[in-house]
Amino acid sequence: MAKTIPISLDAMGGDHGPEVVIPGAEVALVRHPDIRFLIYGNEKVVLPILDRYPRVKEASTFHHCDVSVAMDAKPSQALRQGRWRSSMWRAIEAVKTEEAAVAVSAGNTGALMAMSKFCLRTMANIERPAIAAIWPTTRGESIVLDVGATIGADAQQLIDFAILGGAMARALFSIEKPTVGLLNIGVEEVKGLEEVRTAGRLMREVPLSSLTYSGFVEGDDIGQGAVDVVVTEGFAGNIALKTAEGTAKQIGGYLRAAMSRTLMSKIGYFFAKSAFDRLREKMDPRKVNGGVFLGLNGIVIKSHGGTDAEGYAAAIDLAYDMVRNELTQKIAHDLVHYHRGGIARAAKNSEGDQ
Amino acid sequence: MAKTIPISLDAMGGDHGPEVVIPGAEVALVRHPDIRFLIYGNEKVVLPILDRYPRVKEASTFHHCDVSVAMDAKPSQALRQGRWRSSMWRAIEAVKTEEAAVAVSAGNTGALMAMSKFCLRTMANIERPAIAAIWPTTRGESIVLDVGATIGADAQQLIDFAILGGAMARALFSIEKPTVGLLNIGVEEVKGLEEVRTAGRLMREVPLSSLTYSGFVEGDDIGQGAVDVVVTEGFAGNIALKTAEGTAKQIGGYLRAAMSRTLMSKIGYFFAKSAFDRLREKMDPRKVNGGVFLGLNGIVIKSHGGTDAEGYAAAIDLAYDMVRNELTQKIAHDLVHYHRGGIARAAKNSEGDQ
Repeated sequence: MAKTIPISLDAMGGDHGPEVVIPGAEVALVRHPDIRFLIYGNEKVVLPILDRYPRVKEASTFHHCDVSVAMDAKPSQALRQGRWRSSMWRAIEAVKTEEAAVAVSAGNTGALMAMSKFCLRTMANIERPAIAAIWPTTRGESIVLDVGATIGADAQQLIDFAILGGAMARALFSIEKPTVGLLNIGVEEVKGLEEVRTAGRLMREVPLSSLTYSGFVEGDDIGQGAVDVVVTEGFAGNIALKTAEGTAKQIGGYLRAAMSRTLMSKIGYFFAKSAFDRLREKMDPRKVNGGVFLGLNGIVIKSHGGTDAEGYAAAIDLAYDMVRNELTQKIAHDLVHYHRGGIARAAKNSEGDQ
Repeated sequence: MAKTIPISLDAMGGDHGPEVVIPGAEVALVRHPDIRFLIYGNEKVVLPILDRYPRVKEASTFHHCDVSVAMDAKPSQALRQGRWRSSMWRAIEAVKTEEAAVAVSAGNTGALMAMSKFCLRTMANIERPAIAAIWPTTRGESIVLDVGATIGADAQQLIDFAILGGAMARALFSIEKPTVGLLNIGVEEVKGLEEVRTAGRLMREVPLSSLTYSGFVEGDDIGQGAVDVVVTEGFAGNIALKTAEGTAKQIGGYLRAAMSRTLMSKIGYFFAKSAFDRLREKMDPRKVNGGVFLGLNGIVIKSHGGTDAEGYAAAIDLAYDMVRNELTQKIAHDLVHYHRGGIARAAKNSEGDQ
């Protein structure tokens, strides 16, 4: 039997804390009985819930923490109050000490990223971490990054994101050489941001061995699955992600209203119910819950704060897949090849040319 | 009877040129018999089509132009080859000479904006023009700008966009004091781009009389209709717009697939057909066809290049509404109040503070 996968959980993160985290862990554990959990949280709240989920209790070690990071805490405040001793910090720290292979938290994104950076540090040769989202497309799924770790990115950082996202696509989708596109406005080479154009030129001039660079993509190409990995800086990436979520919600609302409007449409709904269920499942944001922090010395998964047990389990599933498919090793491997390729130097030199 | 509204049309713009423009003009003319068209295009192609639409022919004057701007022309190339004499240029020029109250073109966006700027010039006290899109929301419609005229915007330019978009909302939605939000990531004041935060602070400190500033909005707030006007720079705005279009298309595809999958779902579709028709109508991109160029000395409407007659008619309807509701006068009025308010000076001063 393969060895177990140790996953650390910040039980206090999210709108519902352990009321969602522990049942979520149960759901994931049924699917992956080889997970072992390291659970961090306040014993007064967590232990009674653990008693109701003996399977999770059996498969985990619990660690009491006095401090919980508030959902509205500013990153600096979270670091000041929660460093060393909060459930969030200690879940991340377990990755640093290699007790856990990956950490999962539904806590606030800014605090989680600040603590992850502080605790795990950025990888050598990577300037900034990114948050990668899994985006459902008409072809299956794509990876989009950065969806909000940092605002702005220069050409070198965009190429870093391409490598990180490419490694994640290899780990998650089992594609040997994923296609990567740079998010831009207009597909002609002449258009768009200077740094996006520079990154595109460099990736064409010095091809990366781990991926296929496919050129620029536009906002409407993401959902069509035009490429496996969409690279952008965090401001535009976050706006794209939230806009897509908002649009899906809006259309879901139209659909519900249309179906309950007349007797005929209600009858239609009755007959087509299984089709609607399938559609709802396709559009279910819980099924693709989990932002992956890439570029740090260790993997941290951010779950939506407002999700339920099913959604939280999806974030744990993602964490599990990332470890089983050796994401960290793939990134390390790709980075070595990348620096041999000399594209980093080329990027640096060309910045001087601008 | 009210006086007629003169609208100039670039008959050669778009993927289908006059084959869509002239029938589109017919559709709009039936709805608004008080339109008079100034049609610019190649006589060999346009005149035979005009003969098939006697109503349009009757209500228009035709002007032959030797040159048509290609759909893939770069802006500089279009200016070089098409200035003074192309159908696109002459449609815009008719606005400058006040023969037309507004121009409509389905030609390529970059060329149309370059020519519009060159011909009409930017308004006094406005640094850059913007493209405003009408965005269908769960509440009705909102205006989003800039969706791609320029990349990047400083605080002053964002405030300019707020004023331009606010005036358009007053003209289009008959709201006395539209609500305006700044597109950002995260809603806390501490987050987001420096220039977005500065613009937000200035609009709070020196309220504009023509609008209500509602703070930051995120990508998913746009479709919910959280504010009447969403202000952003052109890169993020274009990506948001395209991403929403792509997501709507993607979900439409899921829905069609789900409904044709089984006999039961086909029966359901039959009963719910009118509900689906209503939904399709809600999601119909043709109904909100038309990007409005704001901030120039005259209004230019950009229609989607690939639209059909119905979609082109929607762009003409929009042009008509903009004139009937005195958009230009409203912008001019708001700008006077704005400069009296002194927010421009405040913005300038605060830039020095950063």
